[in-house]
Order: sequence, then structure tokens, then C-alpha cells
Amino acid sequence: MPLAVLEEARAELTDWRGSGMSVMEVSHRGKPFVAVAEAAEADLRELLGVPASYHVLFMHGGATAQFAAIPLNLAGPDATAAYVNTGAWSKKALGEARGFVKVDVLADEADSRYTTVPRADALRAPAGSAYLHYTPNETIGGVEFPYIPDPGPVPLVADMSSTILSRPVPVERFGLIYAGAQKNIGPAGLAVVIVRKELLRGARPGTPTVLDYALQGQDRSMLNTPPTFAWYMAGLVFRWLKEQGGLPAMAARNEAKAHLLYGAIDASGFYANPVARECRSWMNVPFTLKEPELEPTFLTQARAAGLVNLEGHRSVGGMRASLYNAMPLEGVEALVGFMREFERRHG
Amino acid sequence: MPLAVLEEARAELTDWRGSGMSVMEVSHRGKPFVAVAEAAEADLRELLGVPASYHVLFMHGGATAQFAAIPLNLAGPDATAAYVNTGAWSKKALGEARGFVKVDVLADEADSRYTTVPRADALRAPAGSAYLHYTPNETIGGVEFPYIPDPGPVPLVADMSSTILSRPVPVERFGLIYAGAQKNIGPAGLAVVIVRKELLRGARPGTPTVLDYALQGQDRSMLNTPPTFAWYMAGLVFRWLKEQGGLPAMAARNEAKAHLLYGAIDASGFYANPVARECRSWMNVPFTLKEPELEPTFLTQARAAGLVNLEGHRSVGGMRASLYNAMPLEGVEALVGFMREFERRHG
Repeated sequence: MPLAVLEEARAELTDWRGSGMSVMEVSHRGKPFVAVAEAAEADLRELLGVPASYHVLFMHGGATAQFAAIPLNLAGPDATAAYVNTGAWSKKALGEARGFVKVDVLADEADSRYTTVPRADALRAPAGSAYLHYTPNETIGGVEFPYIPDPGPVPLVADMSSTILSRPVPVERFGLIYAGAQKNIGPAGLAVVIVRKELLRGARPGTPTVLDYALQGQDRSMLNTPPTFAWYMAGLVFRWLKEQGGLPAMAARNEAKAHLLYGAIDASGFYANPVARECRSWMNVPFTLKEPELEPTFLTQARAAGLVNLEGHRSVGGMRASLYNAMPLEGVEALVGFMREFERRHG
Repeated sequence: MPLAVLEEARAELTDWRGSGMSVMEVSHRGKPFVAVAEAAEADLRELLGVPASYHVLFMHGGATAQFAAIPLNLAGPDATAAYVNTGAWSKKALGEARGFVKVDVLADEADSRYTTVPRADALRAPAGSAYLHYTPNETIGGVEFPYIPDPGPVPLVADMSSTILSRPVPVERFGLIYAGAQKNIGPAGLAVVIVRKELLRGARPGTPTVLDYALQGQDRSMLNTPPTFAWYMAGLVFRWLKEQGGLPAMAARNEAKAHLLYGAIDASGFYANPVARECRSWMNVPFTLKEPELEPTFLTQARAAGLVNLEGHRSVGGMRASLYNAMPLEGVEALVGFMREFERRHG
């Protein structure tokens, strides 16, 4: 989270806008909170350029609940949906979907150990598919699509949990975009769903009401008490993003951050990143040391230098730097400086 | 929320335990957050005396998601479940359940306009029922069960969203207790589920993984990123409750608060509460004025005196005072003082 946003939240945590209460305590149906909710939606629509023909939903839970909600809302029980497997999150999404729909895996990058994405022409979904699902950015492998798939007449569905708001995105090319909040939006426990209204022809029977997009759209995401604090925090983040210059400015900043770190890795001979250059992630940069036995030393010394959260995911090991929107360029400069110094001493 | 808890959260909002980060930013799988999560569970178990044979789950969303999760986890698709209708929340629970199970309404208090609860002997669930569901406290009607139903061999399921932690409760008499957090636990977006493990024989096919109690129990509610900030806040509330003397102390305090307010209403001739005396809620006290046209004046003057959130629910109108755990006795004294003064001037 941007420090400026946390400081703003702290300043009014016990007395929100002179109400004498915390924003956590006010009614979600009262005018003050409804104004917060509406402003957050309006700012997100403005940032991403979301057409009026799309709902913007603020839902409970993370992306995992949406892995089920997507087939429940967009596919009948006998339908087939196309999925692309480019790593851990793709795999979770399609694994959950198998409980609700026939899953057709159009491409699976296991052979490259998830260091590549499929060629664009491999992603033509069969005409009868309910939708084509992909994961534009994989946080663990650090692999990112450098293009937007064109599935023809089939709606394109994207799990943007780890990449939303990092750059502009042409929303109109997607049927549905969803994102758990905890990377670039706000606190965990909130998911944003942006869905083309005409795709919602009624969720199938057996869909929990809270996961029904059409009903949530009708009720402006207030079918039940929403995660009000997370929604409020998301609103502060959206306003902060606008103050930073919006998504074009974030894209420039994120590209510079990624360029700096990959450049340092590639120039070193001591550090390595396994991902094919054209699909390296701007958000998550995994890297290894030439001498893996130095990794604990690297992590300990980095921590002592104030550089935290550099452990690779427990499933793959190594190191990983996450460069989400809230990470300033100075943070990456500090990391690169530390890496050079570490290489000088141990390389 | 107790002010002391909000102040504690504010003090460490940008730098949690010297981490240089907010608790919203740390990994839910890291040792520091896992310690928070485990302490919260341990404190809740201690406060309520939850036997080891029960899971205590911290789940995304509010009670509404559980309205679906309960039949999905405790009943087959052809099963029947018994419900009791004592007001708005009961009705929502059984309405959602109808999407998943045959609903047998054992008692319906519509005839009294939800100012009563059924007699205990009306609540014997038929032997084949998957469970008996009831709502111990109805927030809108302000009606509360003065007894715990005895459904015989059938598991008892209770929506304690608005009454949990207000007094001791014999958990072992329940198969499942659930509660949305936003009344007596913490911020919205978290639900606590306390369920006897032996009742979980696998959720039915078509259950979203995040709603599967057995899987969530196995993963200590970390199947996916949980609502970490809400969980942390709940932990602070549990510790505060222990410092207050635990649930016996809260019961004494809550009874005194309710006694004071109902006493003032009954003594007045100017104010009235419609609920049968033996089942008046400790938590939610709806009341009307003898002259309903004075209600807007009452609310405006109350607000000017710092007494807020006194509007009755939009579905019933009138006034309502909610006396959740965080409301101190002094708050009720101030309300009663204002009510006497208002009656003196307008009565």
C-alpha cells in the first residue's frame, strides 16, 4: 500500500470525517459511506476507462472465490470453457473451474517450467467455449503476457490480481476482468470484478447469491454488508493513483523499475532470471544466485539493509522482488545497489 | 468497535510491530501474521469455551455467504433442513437455503409481526432433518430467544451475528455457530464459523472451495489469502474482551444496559417497545414515540446531542438503539437522559 494512503487512513481511523466514528463503524447504507463507495467506483472507471456497458463490482473475498463464480455466472453446467496454463494461478483457476464446467486447456507452459507464454495463434478458443480464461501475470514464475489474446467471438476473462492498475488496459477487449485487492488495490478480503453486462444472463441454479454478478450489479455490490474498510482503502488508492498521473504515469514508473532490475540481473553474471525476455513480468522478478548456497546470506543481509519480502515463493525457492505500484523507484534502486555490493563481496 | 481497539490499530497502522509495514501488507503465511491468526483463534476459543472437537474458521464475507455454505456443507441435495422464522435475518437465511435444500419451516412468527419467538416444544425437528437453523437475535425486530432450542438428535445451527460474545454460550449444544464480524467481532468482510468437526463429511459437489468448511479447517482458514486486517482487528477485540473480564463480565454489562433502556421505555408512557418482554433483545432495542410525527425531531436533536445511529431499520421505521459490546453503559445513560428530557419537552 502507498505510505501516503496508510497515513491518510491512520489520521482518520478513529474519527472519520468528523463523525466521531471509524469508517469501519458507519452503516454501509448511510449517505457518507455510499458516497465513498460511489467515488471509488467512479475513480476506478476513470483510471481504467471502463465503459458504461460494464458492471464494476466490489465483492467479498479474493480471486479464489471468483475462480468458482466465473463458471457459475458465465457457463451452463454442460458447457466447456477454455483455459491457458502459464503457472500457479492459472492452475488454481482451472482446477477450481473443473468443479463447475468442462475445462479445455488450450495451452500449457509446463514444458518450459512456466518461463514462457503460448504463441498468440495457439489461443483461438473453440467456437462453443463459454469463455477463454488466462492469467496475464503469474506472481510466482514472474511471467507475463506481452500481448492480449484474441479469442474471436468468445469472451476473454482475465485474472488481473497482480497486474491491474499497473498500466492502461483496453477494457473493451475483455468480457470480464477480476482482481483480488491485495496487490495493487487495497487490503485482502476484497475483489474487483469488471464484467460486460450483456454476458450476464442469470447465474446458474446453485450459485450462492453473494457470487451472483447480476444480483450484485443490481444492488451496487451491497446485496449484503460489503467489506467497507477495504472498499474505503481501495478508494484512497484510486485517488492516489489519479494524483500520480493515472495509469500512463504508473506504466512509465513500473517499466522503469522493471528495466532497472532486469538490467542489473542481466549485466551481472552473478544473478539470473529464468524467464524468456519478451514475457518477463513488470510486477514480480524472480532471480537466483550463481551460488545458491549464498541465498540465506543474501536474504539476511538484505533484511539488515531494510530490504524485505525478497524470499522466493516457498514452491520454487530463490529470490523474488515484487514491484507493485506501491514500490517506489527508490526501493528498486536500493535493491540494485545492495545486489551490486553483495556481488562485489561474494561474487 | 471498542475505542481502545481502534486506538491500538491506529498506533501501529503504518508500522506494525516494528516491521516498517502495515499489518495489511505482511504476508499471511509469514510467522508474524500466523502468530496473530493463531492468537485470535486461541482467544476466541478461550472466551467461548470452544471444545477441541470444533473447528474455528475465519472466513471471507459475512453471514450471507454462510446462508449458502451451511446447506452446501451439512446437507445433501435431496435433504430437508428445518428453519425457524423470527424475522428478517431468519427469512434471508431460509430464503438462500431454498436454493440448496428442501426447507421445512417449523415455526413462523409473522402473525405477531415478529415480536415473539416460538415455544420451545414447537422446535422438535423431524428426525430426518439435516439440521435445525435459527437466529438467536433479530436485529430489526429486536427479538431474542430466551432459551436454546433442543432439536433432539439433529444438529443445531445458529446465526449469532448480532449476539456472539455478548454473554457466555454453551457451544457444545450447537452443531454450528456462525457470525458476520461487523457487530461484536470486528470489521465487515469476515465471518467466524464454529463447527463440530464430525459433522463435516465433505461438502457436496458444486461447492466453491472457499466455502468448504472441511478444506478451510484443514488449511486453518488459509486456503487463500484471508481478510488479514479484519482477522487482526478481531484478535484485538478478543483480547479487549478478555481484559474486560470475558463473557460473564460482558453479560453483566449488556444486561445492565438493556435493563436501563427498557426500564426507561416502559416507565415512560411516551416511548414504546413492541416486543414480548421475555424475548426482548439485549442488543437491539427498537422503540417508537407516542406521537410518530415527532420522530424526525427526536432524531435530529439526538444527533445534535451526539447520539447517532438511532434510526430504525428502513423496513420498519421508528427508532432503534443498538447496544453491542462496544457501547459503554455511559452511552445508554446518555440516551436515557436525552429521552427523559425530550419527553419532558414534547410529551
